[in-house]
Amino acid sequence: MAAAAQPVYWLGNDTLRVSAALFAENRRRLCQGLKAKDGVVPKSVVVLQGGEQTQRYCTDTDVLFRQESFFHWAFGVTEADCYGAIDVDSGKSILFVPKLPESYATWMGEKIHQFSFSLRSIFCVLYGCRSTVICNVIFLVRETAGYSFSVCSRVVKTDMELEVLRYTNRVSSEAHKMVMKHVKPGKKEYEMESLFQHYCYTKGGMRHTSYTCICGTGNNSSVLHYGHAGAPNDKTITDGDMCLFDMGGEYYCYSSDITCSFPANGKFTPDQRAIYEAVLKASRAVMAALRPGVKWTDMHRVADRVHLEELVKIGILHGSVEDMMKVHLGSVFMPHGLGHLLGIDVHDVGGYPEGIERIDEPGLKSLRMGRLVQERMVLTVEPGIYFINHLLNQALANPAQSCFIDNQVLARFRGFGGVRIEDDIAVTADGIELMTCVPRTVEEIEAFMADSTKPFSPVV
Amino acid sequence: MAAAAQPVYWLGNDTLRVSAALFAENRRRLCQGLKAKDGVVPKSVVVLQGGEQTQRYCTDTDVLFRQESFFHWAFGVTEADCYGAIDVDSGKSILFVPKLPESYATWMGEKIHQFSFSLRSIFCVLYGCRSTVICNVIFLVRETAGYSFSVCSRVVKTDMELEVLRYTNRVSSEAHKMVMKHVKPGKKEYEMESLFQHYCYTKGGMRHTSYTCICGTGNNSSVLHYGHAGAPNDKTITDGDMCLFDMGGEYYCYSSDITCSFPANGKFTPDQRAIYEAVLKASRAVMAALRPGVKWTDMHRVADRVHLEELVKIGILHGSVEDMMKVHLGSVFMPHGLGHLLGIDVHDVGGYPEGIERIDEPGLKSLRMGRLVQERMVLTVEPGIYFINHLLNQALANPAQSCFIDNQVLARFRGFGGVRIEDDIAVTADGIELMTCVPRTVEEIEAFMADSTKPFSPVV
Ligand SMILES: [Mn+2]
Ligand SMILES: [Mn+2]
Repeated sequence: MAAAAQPVYWLGNDTLRVSAALFAENRRRLCQGLKAKDGVVPKSVVVLQGGEQTQRYCTDTDVLFRQESFFHWAFGVTEADCYGAIDVDSGKSILFVPKLPESYATWMGEKIHQFSFSLRSIFCVLYGCRSTVICNVIFLVRETAGYSFSVCSRVVKTDMELEVLRYTNRVSSEAHKMVMKHVKPGKKEYEMESLFQHYCYTKGGMRHTSYTCICGTGNNSSVLHYGHAGAPNDKTITDGDMCLFDMGGEYYCYSSDITCSFPANGKFTPDQRAIYEAVLKASRAVMAALRPGVKWTDMHRVADRVHLEELVKIGILHGSVEDMMKVHLGSVFMPHGLGHLLGIDVHDVGGYPEGIERIDEPGLKSLRMGRLVQERMVLTVEPGIYFINHLLNQALANPAQSCFIDNQVLARFRGFGGVRIEDDIAVTADGIELMTCVPRTVEEIEAFMADSTKPFSPVV
Repeated sequence: MAAAAQPVYWLGNDTLRVSAALFAENRRRLCQGLKAKDGVVPKSVVVLQGGEQTQRYCTDTDVLFRQESFFHWAFGVTEADCYGAIDVDSGKSILFVPKLPESYATWMGEKIHQFSFSLRSIFCVLYGCRSTVICNVIFLVRETAGYSFSVCSRVVKTDMELEVLRYTNRVSSEAHKMVMKHVKPGKKEYEMESLFQHYCYTKGGMRHTSYTCICGTGNNSSVLHYGHAGAPNDKTITDGDMCLFDMGGEYYCYSSDITCSFPANGKFTPDQRAIYEAVLKASRAVMAALRPGVKWTDMHRVADRVHLEELVKIGILHGSVEDMMKVHLGSVFMPHGLGHLLGIDVHDVGGYPEGIERIDEPGLKSLRMGRLVQERMVLTVEPGIYFINHLLNQALANPAQSCFIDNQVLARFRGFGGVRIEDDIAVTADGIELMTCVPRTVEEIEAFMADSTKPFSPVV
């Protein structure tokens, strides 16, 4: 069937059209993998359970539904409470949709399952039964061949998937730029979260973000997962603050994950510039080295090394960078991993397939991906330097590390917060494609924030 | 302890300050009720489990945390994974907070549990244990005295709670007005949802809405729970459409629930005006009759009766309204209940205490509250008239109902959609306080939408 004949997901205006062919291709890849594998019984059927509509605790208040990721990857169905089955031999698919009482039309509308209806051209859509599967069933749960094959397939993105990820990056990049135009001292961090979400939804059709927005300013920019309910982006932004805004919109369940760091007042101080440019140098060094076949763990080490070299130039550290690497000094300033796979989940599956273990070293042990870099992977590259008091104090208490630290210079950076520069990239045959497009150099950021033209007014 | 000495929840700017005294008062009421009850053993302790941080399916993507409602009502703690205990005799409270590893500070921040910390003045805050409770424990689960007393207490709002509900209504009313100023044919329904949410969050500190936004236009305005994942506010708004926007912001877990209905182009047609004014008349008739002691079920019938009288005047119905009431004709046009309790949950608890059963009649069986109206209840008043094809067809197929219907006139209203007018009110000693403040008459709406001054720009 030609792709053009397939149903299309589209939210109007400038939002992206996504053909249901994307999911047909994913199912085809899954079946192909399973058929090639020894030990998968003929006449097997893969069964996937879709996400369920849930409520807040014991109330009748629905939690906004988000499809389960494997089910989305295979079927692209937007509604809750479905099941799907794929006949491995023939590749034919069956979608099981809940049987709804007639009164449903009153409350939920006649057009419920409109997208599923349109899928009739490609699926056999069955209503209200879970009972017609008669052959060897592979439930898609961990520890099955179906599961590990779909994980492998999700690691490698198709052209159609890359197109969606380019879109999520484009919209989220624009939303970040919007926030940079409107940030100013005196506003609350959550106003920036709200503006980002509004841009992504109203312009990009993104009802969900890929993760809870992190809008850390001042010292909060050193809190890696700031923004959660215990620290809900509720500080007032202050003149002199660094902002670290880690936010990504999600379209049709495909993610983005972008961090912009910049001064709240639009002008870097010399110290802010120095730290920022150290991180940017690490980012660009990694991107220059990235290509199929390199080890992701090595990329993490590249970033660590650049950070240490630059911290020496700034005067916070002194001595041999080689020796610093041996005592994992890099992880004092970047305790997290360099980046992770990105796809339908923001921390996408498949970072550690069977046989690949995490490296038990500070920093590297937090890396969410341990495999060789491969064409068609989508990854975040997100080096960062943070001044986290309890990590700095630990390092100062450890003679093997403190010998490299100039505590007097370091004191100047207490309370600085942190800088993270996070881009999303797709691995190509001989390098990378940078999907994120936001001002990145100090000069670009200062010029962009100084320019008073505000090209987007969220209300018109 | 004076209320002034208590910690305060506040999100800056013009958001509301809420004293922790609100929750102390709730705990006091709970203990008072329990002590007065026969059969509660002395030295009892009420134990509540707070809400848990959850993830999307089997991923590490956190779902944005929202506190469990009973726990919020008793403790006002914003963080996840806590327990609370209240000693019924003394009224003293203990908050159990998870013990966090030191590394937590790196990822989540040192200020995690900052509000809980500040609660130390009123609670004994214990970390990382669930084991020190030594006396008679009343877990706050259904079927315990603690549960039914807290339900009863939640039905009756304190002054401090009313203050918060006035605030949620004020902000949500302003957000609705903002949407009315910016709606126009050609836009997508979800753009209006996005704008509403942005206003509520950026101006009101409301990170959550009380429920999924319903932004139905055209025929979608007759789908009572439109807006869910199967019908996600994705239609393009068209000239001539009625809009029915049912949206409410939530501040510090207190809800609001407001519906505005108006023509997308700002000008009512004669038919739109007729239906709208019928619903408004029902709304105002109910409000005029509402006071402590009246039956909520009677209020539902008042609305039904006004609707039927007005539908006769419009010509859709003919005959005796008294006879129409006997065959429940009102429920063909308003299949839902007149309104519900409102509080920490949008459909707040306590509508049917033990001994009060739902009335098994069309329409009335959907009513979420069966008790006598009582001072300090907060209720929604939300009559509506909808033209729902499958209900109209059912009625036409039923001779007992079809004899009242002029099918030729009715045909003109097929595809009209629906009108709902939903306000939140607090019951006073001798009547009601109207908390919602939006343009309501046809003249107010047309004048408001025609005036091109747009007082709020969401980005500045
Ligand atoms: Mn990331
Ligand atoms: Mn309501």
